[in-house]
Amino acid sequence: MKSATLGLPLFGNILGILLTLMLATIALAPPATGQSQPPWNLIPQPANVKPGSGALPVGANFTIAFTGHTESRLDRAADRFLIQLHRQTGLLLPKSARDAAQATLVVHTDHASKEIQELGEDESYSLEVTATGAKLNAANPTGVLRGLQTFLQLVEVSPNGFAAPAVTIQDQPRFAWRGLMIDVSRHFIPLDVLKRNLDGMEAVKMNVFHWHLSENQGFRVESRKFPKLHELGSDGLYYTQDEIRELVAYARDRGIRVVPEFDMPGHSTAWFVGYPELASGSGPYSIERKWGIFDPAMDPTNEKTYKFLDDLVGEMVKLFPDHYFHIGGDEVNGKEWDANPKIQEFKKSHNLKTNEELQVYFSQGLQKIVTKHGKSVVGWDEVFIPGAPKDIVIQSWRGQQSLAAAAQQGYHGILSNGYYLDLGWSAARHYAVDPMGGPAANLTDDQKKLILGGESCMWSEYVNAENVDSRIWPRNAAIAERLWSAQSTTDAASMYARLDAIGARLEWLGLTHRTYYHKMLQRIAGPATPEEFSALRTLANVVEPVKDYSREKTAAAEPTSQTPLNRVVDAVPLESDSGRHFSELVDKFLAGTCRDSAAANQLRRQFTLWTQNDATFVSLAQKSFLANEVVATSRDLAAIGNAGLRALDAIAASAPFSTDQLTQLNAVLAEAGKPKTQLLLMPVPAVRKLVDAASQSGTCTAAKP
Amino acid sequence: MKSATLGLPLFGNILGILLTLMLATIALAPPATGQSQPPWNLIPQPANVKPGSGALPVGANFTIAFTGHTESRLDRAADRFLIQLHRQTGLLLPKSARDAAQATLVVHTDHASKEIQELGEDESYSLEVTATGAKLNAANPTGVLRGLQTFLQLVEVSPNGFAAPAVTIQDQPRFAWRGLMIDVSRHFIPLDVLKRNLDGMEAVKMNVFHWHLSENQGFRVESRKFPKLHELGSDGLYYTQDEIRELVAYARDRGIRVVPEFDMPGHSTAWFVGYPELASGSGPYSIERKWGIFDPAMDPTNEKTYKFLDDLVGEMVKLFPDHYFHIGGDEVNGKEWDANPKIQEFKKSHNLKTNEELQVYFSQGLQKIVTKHGKSVVGWDEVFIPGAPKDIVIQSWRGQQSLAAAAQQGYHGILSNGYYLDLGWSAARHYAVDPMGGPAANLTDDQKKLILGGESCMWSEYVNAENVDSRIWPRNAAIAERLWSAQSTTDAASMYARLDAIGARLEWLGLTHRTYYHKMLQRIAGPATPEEFSALRTLANVVEPVKDYSREKTAAAEPTSQTPLNRVVDAVPLESDSGRHFSELVDKFLAGTCRDSAAANQLRRQFTLWTQNDATFVSLAQKSFLANEVVATSRDLAAIGNAGLRALDAIAASAPFSTDQLTQLNAVLAEAGKPKTQLLLMPVPAVRKLVDAASQSGTCTAAKP
Repeated sequence: MKSATLGLPLFGNILGILLTLMLATIALAPPATGQSQPPWNLIPQPANVKPGSGALPVGANFTIAFTGHTESRLDRAADRFLIQLHRQTGLLLPKSARDAAQATLVVHTDHASKEIQELGEDESYSLEVTATGAKLNAANPTGVLRGLQTFLQLVEVSPNGFAAPAVTIQDQPRFAWRGLMIDVSRHFIPLDVLKRNLDGMEAVKMNVFHWHLSENQGFRVESRKFPKLHELGSDGLYYTQDEIRELVAYARDRGIRVVPEFDMPGHSTAWFVGYPELASGSGPYSIERKWGIFDPAMDPTNEKTYKFLDDLVGEMVKLFPDHYFHIGGDEVNGKEWDANPKIQEFKKSHNLKTNEELQVYFSQGLQKIVTKHGKSVVGWDEVFIPGAPKDIVIQSWRGQQSLAAAAQQGYHGILSNGYYLDLGWSAARHYAVDPMGGPAANLTDDQKKLILGGESCMWSEYVNAENVDSRIWPRNAAIAERLWSAQSTTDAASMYARLDAIGARLEWLGLTHRTYYHKMLQRIAGPATPEEFSALRTLANVVEPVKDYSREKTAAAEPTSQTPLNRVVDAVPLESDSGRHFSELVDKFLAGTCRDSAAANQLRRQFTLWTQNDATFVSLAQKSFLANEVVATSRDLAAIGNAGLRALDAIAASAPFSTDQLTQLNAVLAEAGKPKTQLLLMPVPAVRKLVDAASQSGTCTAAKP
Repeated sequence: MKSATLGLPLFGNILGILLTLMLATIALAPPATGQSQPPWNLIPQPANVKPGSGALPVGANFTIAFTGHTESRLDRAADRFLIQLHRQTGLLLPKSARDAAQATLVVHTDHASKEIQELGEDESYSLEVTATGAKLNAANPTGVLRGLQTFLQLVEVSPNGFAAPAVTIQDQPRFAWRGLMIDVSRHFIPLDVLKRNLDGMEAVKMNVFHWHLSENQGFRVESRKFPKLHELGSDGLYYTQDEIRELVAYARDRGIRVVPEFDMPGHSTAWFVGYPELASGSGPYSIERKWGIFDPAMDPTNEKTYKFLDDLVGEMVKLFPDHYFHIGGDEVNGKEWDANPKIQEFKKSHNLKTNEELQVYFSQGLQKIVTKHGKSVVGWDEVFIPGAPKDIVIQSWRGQQSLAAAAQQGYHGILSNGYYLDLGWSAARHYAVDPMGGPAANLTDDQKKLILGGESCMWSEYVNAENVDSRIWPRNAAIAERLWSAQSTTDAASMYARLDAIGARLEWLGLTHRTYYHKMLQRIAGPATPEEFSALRTLANVVEPVKDYSREKTAAAEPTSQTPLNRVVDAVPLESDSGRHFSELVDKFLAGTCRDSAAANQLRRQFTLWTQNDATFVSLAQKSFLANEVVATSRDLAAIGNAGLRALDAIAASAPFSTDQLTQLNAVLAEAGKPKTQLLLMPVPAVRKLVDAASQSGTCTAAKP
């Protein structure tokens, strides 16, 4: 479902950058005045919010009580709620006092949820906060979980202690399937890292954890029936069955379904290390270390393959109670099939003209197995084939058109195209992708109902336990909002403000998407002086890794799963806050017809810092090969700092650039705009705006600050 | 062993501040030229370091192999070593290849250690690194552990990848007892937090974890013989016996002895909640919530007390294999004894004239019990009584003179006075305290041998899981060096530089002494703008909590164990790096006879920032009660910023202040120098230096920058 070769065509990168910039511009627009959202940091935005007056104090005597249906899952939810409230406030909250008559927050639950969480389970809740108390009502425990998170997000520091604003909220999700996929195969992701990401999912009301468990690079589940799968296919990095059960229970507690994925018949080299007889080639096989699409594929013509899969699926469905079972199905290049005379013979005798038809044959067999074990199939686009059973779910990675096409033929679908977290898109760009957008907008109402929601995807070529949180968060919260909140909730500026707030709260849950950064820079800096470290940080703050699938293409040496992830490109966030704020500042300056001298001063300080930063950075670069790698980008930063200063001077003096000057500055900007060592210097387009403005006469008459 | 009432007398605070300042000045002196230490960030400094030429590359093919004695503890040490090396470098290191002929680092161990780590066990090692390989030799596994940490500290980023410099090291500790005490009773500290602190101890070669397990505020160990101890005396916050065993094994793996402390006969209110019959008063008792010294004490006249303690000690020694058992013994105020007629009668009939003599009676009884169970006693100063068995160890909290006095009478001792981490002293001030300093310097050589070392102490009135790491680290590394390295290793500037480097490495071990800070500030800031958050940080970076025992004395309301630790005073580090760097900068400026215009510019920028910071901070203070609390300190910061600017101007213009001007500025500085909301504004003394310099004519002729 992803790869460099099947990614966007070459010009896709440029297109992607342009689109990012366009969307960034949209994101910077002030909030639409029609949309009056309360100033609270709720993410996702609830369906209906009616502000009240006053606020409920949240102090050391805060208590929570439950009425109606009770169960141990609610007790644990209450414990987690109090721990999280403690982390947010520092207050020591009593665990015991849960008397409804006395409690600050009274939770009423009508009835139990189903024993296994179902797609489409009622997640609605209502929350009423007044100056004297709060009431949360929900039909079932899952709704309660959602409402508790909303309450936690309402609690803020105030002039008089911590408090939650008075409000009445009626809320339910727009889509029933709101997922996050994590690829634990290309790089293994330890269980505790997954757990904290499930905590993050709960905080933003996501309800499906899609666990991408097998790949060419690793088979990550203990199989007792076929132990060579994990013993020979994982480098010892796999989850035991106890750990799987532990995570499933952990997710269940948080109202999150766990959908396992075993990717077949391609993406399966790691299976063949222990069981080469499953493959279409002659082997032997070893765990794949590189990234991309590879030839090995299961032999769809061998009855033993289906027997094996029947046994394995039978074993795995006991670990994963969810009704859905993901069979992958993507990116089979067919080379092993073409090279195997027996398979060619089979195709002929079964009248299968193409490899696509052969894959259909395989999928039909596999779908029968999954169905036999009481599950429904989820698969990537490629499993959407004529005659597929109607209960399958198509996960669309290729584009929105395939989602619409599936719906037109009566198939359920979820959208992942546009939600690939590893591509490094801005939160605003993900936020602008709607499952009902594009061709889906033209579907009939009945067809629209088939679109269940979406899933963000964290493919793990360039992530490990250290930086994975930062690749998922906080951007994933923007996608979570897209899938929960009203389609009309599209104000990117508001989203960014709330993203910043949720970013802090997510760290209290144990996520490390902010704190990892200093540690990784420290490794790069080594024994640097404080000034040198600061110079590294100044540079790192304004760069982003190259986007989409450019990283493979621009690597100095072919990257593998053994390549250390210790470079600047691995350390910097995928979206630069500093870069975004700088662009906003330039826009503010230019919008003020150059009369905003505060903005001018700020810009001047920023540019001066950049011009001076390089000398200090160079001294660091002489000590550290990891810093030295990005020395050209530091030079570029100084160069655009200089360009920015000259533009400010020209604007202040109302002395437009000469053609020669402009040509020279444009050359500087063109050079700085080129990706180097897989990094993009984010302020370049905004500096270009300034230079462009400075090349137009008479646009500005402000005095030099 | 500590309390507000028995702490330094009132003027002690001022004395302490003055001493801190004096020592800070010493700390800023350049390294003595006689002392040529290599530029590497080794802490503690090894006994003998002979630099070689070249460096050993540490790349993805790095391997480690063991020869000589082997055991599973060494295997685990190797695994930890590789994990830590991975964290430092990001390299993916193979676990398996441990062939001595091929390995990069070959470790030779002569023989096993004793099954239970003994006081005085050989910890020496030799380490030879050349450009082509490294050899670590030690008599036993404990020496290997020490040498592995030295190797890890040698590995640094370099211009050509990661590398360890060529060097020959012969190393052994100066003192045999190098401990850290953590009080887990006043605030409970979870097991995982203790574990990461043990990792930190291993990194700086400390070898005793002193576990302060019982107090008025909590009894923290599961007792199966007397379950009401933990059930009623801990609020449910205690370690199970399995967890105790787990931690002891964890420490053993790291070459750390675990000495448990059960503090008796005072400091024991929590025991009496479940077992009031142990007490001298009539009860009933409840867990103490306040800080200080309290009346409850065990009844030393009741034979049942000794029977109980015999049973309890008998149970506890099975959990704690170390030869030493700490019985506390400090701070009995005697009030319950005085109020109990039966006890008064007992004193008369046994010819015990004072309560001190009554405590001697108790201690003798308890010491017999501990001895009977095969252990030797450790106790605070107060257990040093006539006739005490000669195998006891006195832990000196009152002062260095008591350590010397004990040694003169043939008793072993360890120093803790001067190493109380909770008092907020600078690392330099702790560093200047030597167990052989003061009266101990006059002991005979035989008497000196009785001084075993020292222990830093983390009392937990104002720490919890969130900020405890920051109260221990990195300052504890300075104490660790004092106890390991040569007495002549006293260069505080070098120590600070290395402290900064170890600070980064300790975070890779999981300690949170740096990363906690942003989170706590975020809680205070709440929904602040980036500028407001930055203003909070600027202020927080230059304040420190009041020192010694001032916090209780200056509290607005009496603090208890239920008081939230969410204020600025709880968030800021106990030693301000920014404050120290600012003082260094002022010294540099003044030492340059005012001609250092780079320093002048830096100072001017700093002062300008401070003057401008207040307006932004005030806007934050209007939103957050936690920020609002320190608004006066923000005003003070602006005021000293102004004073600093005026001083710079006066110096630059060679225009000394008039008496009136000086009076006014001194008033500003006096006001800013007053602690407010338990915070000290650290730059005040350095600004005062500038103002003083500016009030002297003709000291400077530099041009205004």
